[in-house]
Parts: sequence; structure tokens; C-alpha cells
Amino acid sequence: KIDADRLWDSLMEMAKIGPGVAGGNNRQTLTDADAEGRALFQRWCEDAGCTMGLDTMGNMFACREGTDPDALPVYVGSHLDTQPTGGKYDGVLGVLGGLEILRTLNDLDVKTKHPIVVTNWTNEEGTRFAPAMLSSGVFAGIHTQDWAEDRTDAKGARFGDELDRIGWRGEEPVGSRKMHAFFELHIEQGPILEAEGKQIGVVTHGQGLSWTQVTITGKESHTGSTPMPMRKNAGLGMARVLEAVDRIAWSHKPDAVGAAGHIEVFPNSRNVIPGKAVFTVDFRSPNLAVIEDMERRLREEGSAICDDMGLEIAFEKVGGFDPVEFDEACVTAVRKAAERLGYTHRDIVSGAGHDACWINRVAPAAMVMCPCVDGLSHNEAEEITKDWAKAGADVLLHAVVETAGV
Amino acid sequence: KIDADRLWDSLMEMAKIGPGVAGGNNRQTLTDADAEGRALFQRWCEDAGCTMGLDTMGNMFACREGTDPDALPVYVGSHLDTQPTGGKYDGVLGVLGGLEILRTLNDLDVKTKHPIVVTNWTNEEGTRFAPAMLSSGVFAGIHTQDWAEDRTDAKGARFGDELDRIGWRGEEPVGSRKMHAFFELHIEQGPILEAEGKQIGVVTHGQGLSWTQVTITGKESHTGSTPMPMRKNAGLGMARVLEAVDRIAWSHKPDAVGAAGHIEVFPNSRNVIPGKAVFTVDFRSPNLAVIEDMERRLREEGSAICDDMGLEIAFEKVGGFDPVEFDEACVTAVRKAAERLGYTHRDIVSGAGHDACWINRVAPAAMVMCPCVDGLSHNEAEEITKDWAKAGADVLLHAVVETAGV
Ligand SMILES: NC(=O)NCCC(=O)O
Ligand SMILES: NC(=O)NCCC(=O)O
Repeated sequence: KIDADRLWDSLMEMAKIGPGVAGGNNRQTLTDADAEGRALFQRWCEDAGCTMGLDTMGNMFACREGTDPDALPVYVGSHLDTQPTGGKYDGVLGVLGGLEILRTLNDLDVKTKHPIVVTNWTNEEGTRFAPAMLSSGVFAGIHTQDWAEDRTDAKGARFGDELDRIGWRGEEPVGSRKMHAFFELHIEQGPILEAEGKQIGVVTHGQGLSWTQVTITGKESHTGSTPMPMRKNAGLGMARVLEAVDRIAWSHKPDAVGAAGHIEVFPNSRNVIPGKAVFTVDFRSPNLAVIEDMERRLREEGSAICDDMGLEIAFEKVGGFDPVEFDEACVTAVRKAAERLGYTHRDIVSGAGHDACWINRVAPAAMVMCPCVDGLSHNEAEEITKDWAKAGADVLLHAVVETAGV
Repeated sequence: KIDADRLWDSLMEMAKIGPGVAGGNNRQTLTDADAEGRALFQRWCEDAGCTMGLDTMGNMFACREGTDPDALPVYVGSHLDTQPTGGKYDGVLGVLGGLEILRTLNDLDVKTKHPIVVTNWTNEEGTRFAPAMLSSGVFAGIHTQDWAEDRTDAKGARFGDELDRIGWRGEEPVGSRKMHAFFELHIEQGPILEAEGKQIGVVTHGQGLSWTQVTITGKESHTGSTPMPMRKNAGLGMARVLEAVDRIAWSHKPDAVGAAGHIEVFPNSRNVIPGKAVFTVDFRSPNLAVIEDMERRLREEGSAICDDMGLEIAFEKVGGFDPVEFDEACVTAVRKAAERLGYTHRDIVSGAGHDACWINRVAPAAMVMCPCVDGLSHNEAEEITKDWAKAGADVLLHAVVETAGV
């Protein structure tokens, strides 16, 4: 079993880098804080006797050698980047949980047949640079690297330039590694495990995602002297489309969710009727047909709303992935590990996207989930208990060792 | 009559400072561009033989002496600051139209009994620092100077610090000047004069304004893994309140307008349900009771909407003024000037707020309006014709000379 105190101390140490304003973290991808977090992780990995690989997207790979020189490594890991007002565990638990299993194997002097590699995938959150899971997506051949490097943040900075700026671009070609399997430990970010008192979620599927960026164009004009019938208020058009997004998601209850987290109006001046509104609609479902129906209705209802108001509307898909079915053997390894260790568990569908969803395309993959308090994530108040972290890392250890062989 | 080409050339020269992105201007208050615009205006005033006064709010006063040492000056003017995506005439026409009448009086070698002072009021637009008409408001005793200097922009910069930074804080106490009268020439910013083919609007009243900043608080959480019934989506609450704002304004048709130009959500990340939404509702009417009714209903309906959704809502009044009735003698001077010059004219209510609305509290005041193309303002495409500008400045000249005596 893993050392829960050591894992917890590492989580707390990492959380000091890029502190938030309310007890959580703001360690967004490719910021100076991201670089600092990477350096700490690298130091810890080297202290544990690993060699660090780094690819040209900044993905990090800490390798603990195996006994069979021909055996492909078993990979574990997640991401160290956070939301702007993120928690201390989203992603970080999967990376430092991976490090903890290496430390435990060192303590026990256990050699595995397959090497074990702990990864930190660059830009999982997708906040600073959309889409989410960008670099695991390049690794899995979903995006070209050129396209990924051209993603820009809200201030216009390019992903590729920021990677160079923080000094974490490696030389290894992206996706050149072959994997025996990939396991990702992650907090649930939803309420099910805690509500049912289960310690472990055996993730069998991941729901699919569609991000559509909507741009509504009206006409900037004076809020005081423009008569009501002459207004082309892009902000009001946006309000009506946001209401439609909610209605569309509810219509597929309980199989879908929908909301917009990103919302902007221009020129954003109190006495100017918005001439432009830009926002991103996030629709998700475990059912691909439901996602497609929601996308279609967003376009139809959005266009009808804007036609009525004399506004223009444009839609751009800026991110998405189909629902995922994880590898049966890997899922079984996770379930068996939980059983063997005597942890209460249930099969679960991941509500969020994860690096494992992309890696599943190029290697057998599965995920281990542990509960989080009130199902709350993407919030600085995100919280877990040391016991939950321990159970998750124990199951990760056993699933990985089972798969890597001794 | 004034020299239309000279006035037009000055307008075009000023428009080169703080250019926008689409042919208009971004010369927001207390920016480097504002400082540059002030310096140009000062140079022109000094070339016209004026002395420049500067008060501790940065208000500028270019004085052309009169013949009677005991006579209070007649003031004219408006503002040189613009919206972030503003036009070349909103405010600027009133300042440079004022300068043009001094230049014309110089050409004709006419001495007036009362001195004539051309003013540039600091921060009329209220975009960078709310509320609008901030420094004419301090001049008129509406706001204390301490409060005004503590206003902050979106980045947290203080008005007072920015005024010092650009080097345009004077020594003269604010509001120490006494005025014989105040006249402001301004574009209509609405469609009425152009639609009716009138060259001149004789502004008898100004509609009142109420700015309420609304803050809705929900709970940040993950857009994928938070079940629909558990969401506290502050962005969706905002959408419903924006719809209510529109409904409330229309219910007082045609006596009211309402919209929100300023809209923000936090943390503004595509995969985070907004935990907070902040926006400013702009309600206006020529009828005070209507404004009060709209404010009351915004609070009532907004609270009901948010109660239903498990959200919190708070309201803060961040700007406003009561409907204005301009001085009868000054209004008559404007109307008579238009008649004498043979310009088509009509009485009109100003839809926008203007410095003259505050100065009217401490001195007899009135306004001259000229049409603008399609009623469009607070838009870089704001446009007027040279003939319209000429008519407006001619009427200003005659109303001022009539009032200042020769
Ligand atoms: N786990 C997680 O929050 N990933 C970000 C991608 C998503 O929005 O699902
Ligand atoms: N004239 C003008 O646009 N002033 C700004 C204040 C207002 O919003 O009415």
C-alpha cells in the first residue's frame, strides 16, 4: 500500500505553487507557475531515481526502468495545470499519485517487468488555450502539432511561443512512445461516489463533449438615445440563446448537460448596446446521438432567435470528443484491484474529459476515480480526504503492478 | 458665421489621436491618448490668444477675455474623451465647435462684454471610470472630489492616480468658477433630426438615467460532471435578468429604454459554470416616475428569478441623474439663433446624458444638437456632415454672442 502522508504532503507542497485567491490554485498552463510546478515534479522524480523525458509539446515522462528490456512501459499520470480558480487535486492527484506508486515500489524494492512511466500532459484544462486535453490529443494523433501550437489565449499569445518562453519544450517527437497500457487516477468532479459512500469509481466510459463558440453580431449604439425598436442588441440575443442551451440540455434529461462558462460582450461599456457577443456552449452526454441533436438544435434555435431580432449568428466548433469506452482488460484490472484491497466501488461514467480519453485511442486505457466533497470541482474550494486519496492511489498501484508484472 | 472647413480640419486632426480600429476613436479618459488630445487642444487655444485654466479634476478652461471686468463668463464646451470604440464627434464637436467660435470672433475682431470660456470636461463617457459626466458632476457639487478620485477602472487603476500619471491635474479648486451661462453643442446620437430633416435640435430637456450594477452569485463547478439539478449557474441567472430588463423597458413604451452594455462572468472559463456574473443595467426615461418604477421592478423581478434558481443577487446603483429641464432663457437663445440663421429646427429631448445636465444645476444652461447619420453613436462608424457641423456651430456662435453681449 502507498504512503498516504507522503502523497498528501506532496499534494500540499505542489499547491503552494500558483496559489489561488480562496485556498485553491491558479496554475494555468504555460505560465511561470506551471514552469515552477514542472520543476518541482522533475526534482521529485529524479530523487525517486527516474529519468525524465520531455517532448516537443512539453509533455513530461518520468521513467522507472523494468526488468524486461523489450517490454513496453505502463503509463500513469494526468496533468499539473489548473483552472484559473481551480482546486488542488484536479489532475494533480493523478500525477503525484503516479509518483507515489514509484516511491512505494522503491521502498518495497519491487522490480516490475514493464517499465512504469509517470506523465504530466500539457494543457489539459483548456482554459487558457482551447481545446482541453490539447497535448494528449496531439500525442494520440487527434490534432496536428502545428494546429495545436497555433492556439492562442485571450491576450493573443500563441501556445508554441509560451511553451518556448517558459523553457519546457523538449526534443522528443510527440506520440513516438508506444504504451503497454495507460491508467489515470482522477477525482470524480461530480457527486455520485460521495453520495453513495463508495471509495472507488471504476471508470468504464467517459461522456462526450462538444464546444461550440457562438458569435452574435448586432450593432453598437448608444444605450440612451437609440430607440428600443432600432436596437440590435447582441447581448440580449446571447441571453436568449443561453436560455435555449439550458432548455435543450434539460430536454435530454438525465442524459445530457449544457451551459456556457465563457461569455464576453463588446465593447463592454455601460452605455453602449453590445455590438457583439461571444460565448462558448459546452454540451455533454454519454450518448453521441444526443450530443449531435443538441448541436443541431443550438444552431437551429440560435439562428431563429437571431433572425427574429435582426442579429447575425455564427457557430464554430472549438473542441469536442466522442463518448469513450475504456479498455476492458484495463477496466477489469482497476475493478479487481479495488476488490482485492477491500475498497467499496462502483462502475461509473466520467462526466469530465480526461487525457485518458485521448490516450485510449492509441493504447489500452482506464481510469480510477475517487470522490470529492459535494462533487465540487473547477472551484478553489474543491476538497478530498486523505483517505480517499489513499484508496485511489492504492488501487492505481495494484492495477499498474498487475499490468506491469513483477 | 463660422468657418466650416477650419472646424472640420480640426475635427479630423483631433481624430488622429487615439485612433480606433474601424475609423473611429479609442481616446478613453486619462489614457496617454487623452493627454495628447488635451495638449493639442491647449496649443490651439493658446494660438487663438486664450489663457488656459486647469482644475484639480483635469477640467480645462480656455478663456477669451471680455470687455466688462465684472461680467461672469459665458461657458461653452463638452468633452474630448471617447468610448473604447467611439466616434470622432461625440463630445469633440462641442469642444472644437467652442474653439471655432473663438477663432471666428477673433477673425471678425468682435469683443464680447462677457468673457467666453471653452471647456473640456474630464471623463464624460464613464466607460473607463463610472459614472459618466464625472468631473462636471464634481464641478456641480453632485459628487465629492474624494469619491470621484477613488473611482477605479477594470484593472483597478484609480482615477486620481491616472490623472496624476498623465500630468493633467491643475491647481484650481473644482467648481470655484461662476458662470453667466453654459451652452453645449453635441450630436444627437439618435435618429430623430435626420429622419425629420431638421438641421438643429433645440434641447429643452434631457432624459434621466439609472445605472444599477447587478451581481449574481452561484457556485463555480464543472460543466461536465455537475448534474443539471445541482447547478447554480450565475450566467443563466444573468440571461434571465437581461430578458426581464428588456421586458421592463418595453412595458413603458415609448417613454423608456433599457439594456446592459457591461457584462462579465467569472471565472470565464469554458468548462466552469459561472459562479458569478456582474453586469450594469442602463435604464432611461424623460419621466422620473418611470425610472423609479423600472429600478423597483428590476430589483423585484431579479430577486424572484434568482430565488427560483438558488442564486444570490445584489444591486448597487453606480450612476444616475434625474431628468433635466434646461434654462428657459438659454433654450430661447438657441431657438432664436436657429431662426435668425434660417436653419430648420425642432425642440428635442436629449436621449443621452451630457455635461450640460450637471452644469444646469449651477448655471443657466442649454444645448444645441445636430443630426448624426442613422442616429448612430458609441460606434466607430458614427458620422456627421460638414454642413450639419457648420449649422450647429453657427447656432452656438449666435446663442453665445447674444448671451455674452457685444
Ligand atoms: N477533468 C477536467 O476537468 N478536464 C477538463 C476538460 C473538461 O472540461 O472535461
Ligand atoms: N453623450 C454621451 O454619450 N454621454 C455619455 C453618458 C451617457 O451614457 O449618456
